Amino acid sequence: MRREFLVISFPESAFQRLGNVTARRLFGILTWTVSTFERERRRRREGERERMPGCSCLLLLFFTIVAHATRSTKASMVTYVPGAAYHLSSLRQDRKISKPEFPLPLQTRYFPQILDHFSFRPDSYRTFHQKYLINSHFWHIGGPIFVYTGNEGDIEWFASNTGFMFDIAPKFRALLVFIEHRFYGESLPFGKKSYKSAETLGYLNSQQALADFAVLIRSLKQNLSSEASPVVVFGGSYGGMLAAWFRLKYPHISLGALASSAPILQFDNIVPSTSFYDAVSQDFKDASSDCFEVIKRSWAEMEAFSTMNAGLTKLSKIFRTCKDLRSVSSAIGWLQTAFVYTAMVNYPTEANFMAPLPAYPVDKMCKIIDGSAARGASDLERVFAAASLYYNYSGSEKCFDIGHEEDAHGLSGWGWQACTEMVMPMSCSDECMFQPFEEDYKGFEENCVFRFGVKPRPHWITTEFGGQRIEKVLKRFGSNIIFSNGMQDPWSRGGVLKNISSSIIALVTKQGAHHADLRRETEEDPDWLKEQRRQEVAIIQKWIDEYYSDSRH
Amino acid sequence: MRREFLVISFPESAFQRLGNVTARRLFGILTWTVSTFERERRRRREGERERMPGCSCLLLLFFTIVAHATRSTKASMVTYVPGAAYHLSSLRQDRKISKPEFPLPLQTRYFPQILDHFSFRPDSYRTFHQKYLINSHFWHIGGPIFVYTGNEGDIEWFASNTGFMFDIAPKFRALLVFIEHRFYGESLPFGKKSYKSAETLGYLNSQQALADFAVLIRSLKQNLSSEASPVVVFGGSYGGMLAAWFRLKYPHISLGALASSAPILQFDNIVPSTSFYDAVSQDFKDASSDCFEVIKRSWAEMEAFSTMNAGLTKLSKIFRTCKDLRSVSSAIGWLQTAFVYTAMVNYPTEANFMAPLPAYPVDKMCKIIDGSAARGASDLERVFAAASLYYNYSGSEKCFDIGHEEDAHGLSGWGWQACTEMVMPMSCSDECMFQPFEEDYKGFEENCVFRFGVKPRPHWITTEFGGQRIEKVLKRFGSNIIFSNGMQDPWSRGGVLKNISSSIIALVTKQGAHHADLRRETEEDPDWLKEQRRQEVAIIQKWIDEYYSDSRH
Repeated sequence: MRREFLVISFPESAFQRLGNVTARRLFGILTWTVSTFERERRRRREGERERMPGCSCLLLLFFTIVAHATRSTKASMVTYVPGAAYHLSSLRQDRKISKPEFPLPLQTRYFPQILDHFSFRPDSYRTFHQKYLINSHFWHIGGPIFVYTGNEGDIEWFASNTGFMFDIAPKFRALLVFIEHRFYGESLPFGKKSYKSAETLGYLNSQQALADFAVLIRSLKQNLSSEASPVVVFGGSYGGMLAAWFRLKYPHISLGALASSAPILQFDNIVPSTSFYDAVSQDFKDASSDCFEVIKRSWAEMEAFSTMNAGLTKLSKIFRTCKDLRSVSSAIGWLQTAFVYTAMVNYPTEANFMAPLPAYPVDKMCKIIDGSAARGASDLERVFAAASLYYNYSGSEKCFDIGHEEDAHGLSGWGWQACTEMVMPMSCSDECMFQPFEEDYKGFEENCVFRFGVKPRPHWITTEFGGQRIEKVLKRFGSNIIFSNGMQDPWSRGGVLKNISSSIIALVTKQGAHHADLRRETEEDPDWLKEQRRQEVAIIQKWIDEYYSDSRH
Repeated sequence: MRREFLVISFPESAFQRLGNVTARRLFGILTWTVSTFERERRRRREGERERMPGCSCLLLLFFTIVAHATRSTKASMVTYVPGAAYHLSSLRQDRKISKPEFPLPLQTRYFPQILDHFSFRPDSYRTFHQKYLINSHFWHIGGPIFVYTGNEGDIEWFASNTGFMFDIAPKFRALLVFIEHRFYGESLPFGKKSYKSAETLGYLNSQQALADFAVLIRSLKQNLSSEASPVVVFGGSYGGMLAAWFRLKYPHISLGALASSAPILQFDNIVPSTSFYDAVSQDFKDASSDCFEVIKRSWAEMEAFSTMNAGLTKLSKIFRTCKDLRSVSSAIGWLQTAFVYTAMVNYPTEANFMAPLPAYPVDKMCKIIDGSAARGASDLERVFAAASLYYNYSGSEKCFDIGHEEDAHGLSGWGWQACTEMVMPMSCSDECMFQPFEEDYKGFEENCVFRFGVKPRPHWITTEFGGQRIEKVLKRFGSNIIFSNGMQDPWSRGGVLKNISSSIIALVTKQGAHHADLRRETEEDPDWLKEQRRQEVAIIQKWIDEYYSDSRH
């Protein structure tokens, strides 16, 4: 029995200030198929190196982690990897070239943060500079403070993709603060050596990040002589998880949280492991059942090339690769990346979050697939054309660099988190649009041990933050959290989709995608998105009104 | 300007299964005065060792930490030191000799606990055996689980002094579990080397302890196939703080908490630093204002002996010491210990918690002081006679071993916690019964650095757990906590004394002392104590009823 597994990258910050073309190329490899797990293990046993020249063991293992099922019969453990860290060095070089633009100017500051909040060993007292961005244009002392709880990447990227906070700052006369997550962006506790080993990476986890936020916010308020200011935290995706957890763990520091597209139930099989890929598949099926079927059967067609004479050369031609493909699975990965991410960012307006895309890009992809049937295109030509929408909306790409990217050493940031605490089991049933695979925890664990020398703690997140029976637990505990989700986003299936109490609210939009509500408002925004944001503003206003009222009495 | 400071020991577990005489002797030294801080620093500078033969530097510093003001004019930083760790080795030897008796038999188990929950460094994966005690006599699968969140000492001691849980187990058909706190009792992560240095002690703190409880409870429920059981946590004193914090941080694991005599507001000057000693003083003043005055003026009388010809010999005679006193301050410490602890355990019935004492021992002490006036006794003879109630209720002690105890190396357990996270500022104003002293954070910090090589984090507990404006923060957040306090107990001043919400309840008894409600019921219990326990049972019943009702819907 062969076991195979896959890591889907969670892209967000990956595209941060990279040229989109570069970013898309880099992302191509995130789902690049290297081999099945058994093959990998055999190679490891036999001391054989990956076919790629100059590929280190760690790198090889990374590729194994991001490998996905090819001729899958059984067994996969899937987590998501944002890929933020992957681009740290590139981003650093790019910083001067492409400075992000914000709706309001942000001042950059650095806070001396303690390395380990939960230990008092001498080492734990070490400090590092944690970056944060701040705008006080509308604020007055005692007024609300809106904090973005940074996720897995440069904080500028999240600030520039959270226009909602800028939009509502004047109304609330709010101080805006965007705090970078430790081990990402410039907030590297050990500088260039931060990713060196488990010894340094050990301090990278969500609990330390939350404590960072707590310490920084408290210090900031004190320095601003504004200890009585109400603080509301905002976050999207992993940042949304952090925002929700921050309100739950630090209610004395944060009055409330807007947790957008926060899959806090994606752990420990609280939601079915199939939910993510089922949701991607459903997006495409809803757009067109023919489209869904074409994509679904394309995998087998592609696999056929691996045994075909000169199969890779033929496939390379169909996929217009710049250089010949090294494996069929790299092309499969390239396609799946496009479909998964397009589902995530299936926004109602033209946007450039993951990649520049038109409004409702899943519809557009399916129109390409369905429309090309009449022109007699093969299934593979049709899925390639659809994926080209994602990789080449501008039409400027002459060829695609599929599976040739080798600079993968920087991905260990989220890769590390996925291999330790952020263990999100995933699988793909026969009903899903991709090749079926099952969970393979054992294989996943072995791989993490090989990569980092430490084992995952698959039950830790739910032990520390809960999740099981959340509707019962929080029915009579906690308050002031908005869980917003757009059902187009496959991560929504791991989110809180029903109101839990009168103040732990689920705002669900059928047509919404990955934290669409956090994006800056545009004239093209549909009514449901406007209404969602209106509700969020009203709820936050209620929290703040209550806070000031409580403070007076 | 001389700066002086003091650490009051928090005795609880210190007496655990030690003969009371031994324990009282050991505790004498906890407030043994060594020197003023400046004197200490001078000695340290000059490389001079303490006068005591064979006393190590660390030991010397420990004594400095526990030193209290003698000719105080200014400056002290006071924290409480439970002294649990102090007796670890002795307790270990005593274990077979004096096995504690429980109202129900308890099975001893050991859980493989992870060393560091909040780091993923390779070292953090190390495991140790965490001890817990369990009784399932009344329990059935799915029924309630009552957990005692162990404090700073052997878990048997807390179990045997928490008869309330045994008393109510039949009514609730509850599983009883008493979990030992890491680094105390047998739950030593590095065995005999656990107290070796900050490198090992670094893992001793409240957040790691709470996470231990979470992991252990979750695992236990899984092993018992009883994941749906409601868990209620109980704790007294530091254990009460842990119980309250556990409910706040792990609501998904614990349905509610009975936090008895939990001074969660004793940090960061939330309550005035004078509150503790003011409360002790008030206990004595309420018993008799003459008694209060006699005690208050006795310190100056005692100080006079330090400049008197053969003063120590004369004072030794008055205090019936077995060997001559080494300093006046050791006698002062011996007295203060008696007064502080008697105030804490000013129970309405005869009890043997800190020491065997009659009902309402503060009253009895004051009766001794007031009554002896008629017999022409001096002030010092009167306060000595009062303190003898505490040290010699049985009357079997022929002499007292004041200030000669040298085995202080084991106190670093709570001493460590007090020097890192559990920083409780205290001072004594002119109005209090003891010699006045002020806070001296700088001196305290220097001392901790000298002792352990690490600095205290004085704002960490309130950053992690809150405390400031608690009534506002928890008004709309959290639920199901009982804060019970007896106003005779000086720690009550750092407790939650008013209802915060409909389910975060303060039960305050005017005549109650240090977690009196957790003690086993006796026929002599006064009505107010019975009523307090009745209310606690009713509230816990309501939580459990709601839990099962919620689970059904």
